[in-house]
Amino acid sequence: MIERLVVAGVGLIGGSLALAARRSGACARTVGWGRDAERLAAAVRAGVIDEGHTDPAAALAGAGLIVLAVPLGACRAVFEALRPHRPADAVVTDVGSVKTSVIEDARAVFGAVPPWFVPGHPIAGDARSGFGAARADLFHGRRVVLTPLPETDAGALARVEALWTAVGAEVERCTAEEHDRVLADTSHLPHLLAYALVEHLLRRHGRERAFRFAAGGFRDFSRIAASDPTMWRDICLANRPALRAALGSYRALLAELDAALDAADGAALYEWFARAKAARERFCDRGER
Amino acid sequence: MIERLVVAGVGLIGGSLALAARRSGACARTVGWGRDAERLAAAVRAGVIDEGHTDPAAALAGAGLIVLAVPLGACRAVFEALRPHRPADAVVTDVGSVKTSVIEDARAVFGAVPPWFVPGHPIAGDARSGFGAARADLFHGRRVVLTPLPETDAGALARVEALWTAVGAEVERCTAEEHDRVLADTSHLPHLLAYALVEHLLRRHGRERAFRFAAGGFRDFSRIAASDPTMWRDICLANRPALRAALGSYRALLAELDAALDAADGAALYEWFARAKAARERFCDRGER
Repeated sequence: MIERLVVAGVGLIGGSLALAARRSGACARTVGWGRDAERLAAAVRAGVIDEGHTDPAAALAGAGLIVLAVPLGACRAVFEALRPHRPADAVVTDVGSVKTSVIEDARAVFGAVPPWFVPGHPIAGDARSGFGAARADLFHGRRVVLTPLPETDAGALARVEALWTAVGAEVERCTAEEHDRVLADTSHLPHLLAYALVEHLLRRHGRERAFRFAAGGFRDFSRIAASDPTMWRDICLANRPALRAALGSYRALLAELDAALDAADGAALYEWFARAKAARERFCDRGER
Repeated sequence: MIERLVVAGVGLIGGSLALAARRSGACARTVGWGRDAERLAAAVRAGVIDEGHTDPAAALAGAGLIVLAVPLGACRAVFEALRPHRPADAVVTDVGSVKTSVIEDARAVFGAVPPWFVPGHPIAGDARSGFGAARADLFHGRRVVLTPLPETDAGALARVEALWTAVGAEVERCTAEEHDRVLADTSHLPHLLAYALVEHLLRRHGRERAFRFAAGGFRDFSRIAASDPTMWRDICLANRPALRAALGSYRALLAELDAALDAADGAALYEWFARAKAARERFCDRGER
C-alpha cells in the first residue's frame, strides 16, 4: 500500500486516479500538487483529494508514488520542480499520450532516464475535462500502457503496475517507440482528420448550411474535433515524427482511393469498404456500434 | 390523403416510410414492390406494409405516390420497370443519397425528366438495415432535401412535401448540384475517410494490436466504416465529381497540416483546433457531444 500518492495536476485523469486509488485501498492518502491554490482547495472540498499543495516541498514530503498528470508541454517543468524534493524511495510515473517525448524530458532534466521513473499512458478519457468530471471508475476495464526502459527499476515498475491494476485497468507493456507509433495511428491521426474535416466544411460552405445538412455520420466522425486544442497541439508537437509518418501513409491511401474514383473502379471501392467493415466489426467492441 | 402509397424496395428507409405514412394517416394503404416474394410476405406479416408484389402491374395499379427506396445503382432499372405501369396521375419520388445521378437516370429512361418525378433525400439512417429495423419515427425531426427541377410539377412537389411533413420530417429545397456538393462534404467524404482509416490500421499494424489500443475516439470516428459496402460503392460512383472535388480540397488541407507539423508550428495547430472545436460546438446538436 502507498502511504502518500501525489498527483501533479488535478484534472480529469489526475482527479480520477486519486479517487480510484483511495477507494480501492491502493493508497492511504492522496495529495494534489498544482499551481492554483483555489482549485486545489475546491478539489479537496469536492472530496477528490485529501490535501492540496502548491509548494513542491510540502506536496512531495513522504510521497511513495508521484503521478504526473499534466499536459505534455508541462512535463519538463514538473520534472525540474520535483527534482530537489522527491523522497529517495519515491517512484514517479506519468500519464502522457506520447511517451518518447516525456522520456526525452526526463533525460534532459536528470541527465539520464532515472530508474525510478516509469513512463505510462492510460488509454482513457472523456469529452469533459477538469476534476469536476473525475470519477473513480474511469479506468475500469481500460488499457494502461507502460513503456519501461532497460534502465527502469523492476520494483518501481511493479509498484506502478499494482496501482493501475488496483483501479481496475489492464496493464500492457511495450516500447515507447511502439506506443507512439500505434497511438499516432489510432488516436492522434484520427484527431487531426476530424479537425481537418470541420475546417474543410468551414472553408467550403461557410457557417451554416453545411452543418445543418450534416447527419449522424458526421457527428460521430467529428466528435473528437471538440477535444481540448491545447492538449492536442501538445500531443501533435510531442509525437511529430510518428504522426507525420502516419499522416504520410494515410495521404497515400487517399491518393489510391482518388485513383479508384477517377477510374470509376467500383470493384476496388467495394473491396476496400467490405474489408474495412469486416475489420471494424471483428476488432471493435461487439457491444457497441 | 394518398389512397395507395407504393414503396419500391422495402428496406430500412422504405419500410420506415410505409410504417410512418400509415400511422400518420397520410395514406390509406401501403404497398411494397420488390423482387423477393418471400421477403415481401415477411414484411406484410411483420406489419410493415399492407401488401407486397413482385409484379409491377399489380404493385402500381391505383398508385397515388410511388417512392423509390432502392440502392442508387438500381434506380434506372426501377424507372424502366415502372414506365409501362405508372398510373397517369401518380407522382414518383426517390430517397437516393445522390440527386444528379438519379435525375440523369430519369432523363435516360424517359427522354426528359418527367414533371411527375420529384427527386428527394431524407437525411436519416441507422447502423442497421432491412425492414426488420424499420420504425415509424425514423424521420421525426430529420431533414428531407427535395431538389425539384424547373420542369417539376408544383402539385407533384406539394404532394411529396406533404408526405414528408406528415411523417415528422423538416423539408428543405435546393438544387441537385448543391445537394450533391454539400452531401459530398458532410457525408460521403467522411465515409471515405473512415474506410481509409481502418485500411490504414490494417496495413500498418496487421490484425490485432492496433485495434486493441484503439480508444473511444477511434471507435466514434470509424463507426461509419461499418456501413454497407454496396450502398457506399454506389454512392461514391454516383457522386464521383463532387466527391473527388471534396477529396481534393481535403487532401490540400492535410498538406497544410503536414507543413504546420513539419515546421513545429504550434500556434497554427492551436488555431486550427480551436476554430474546429468552436465550430463543432456551435453548429452540432447541443444535446449530444
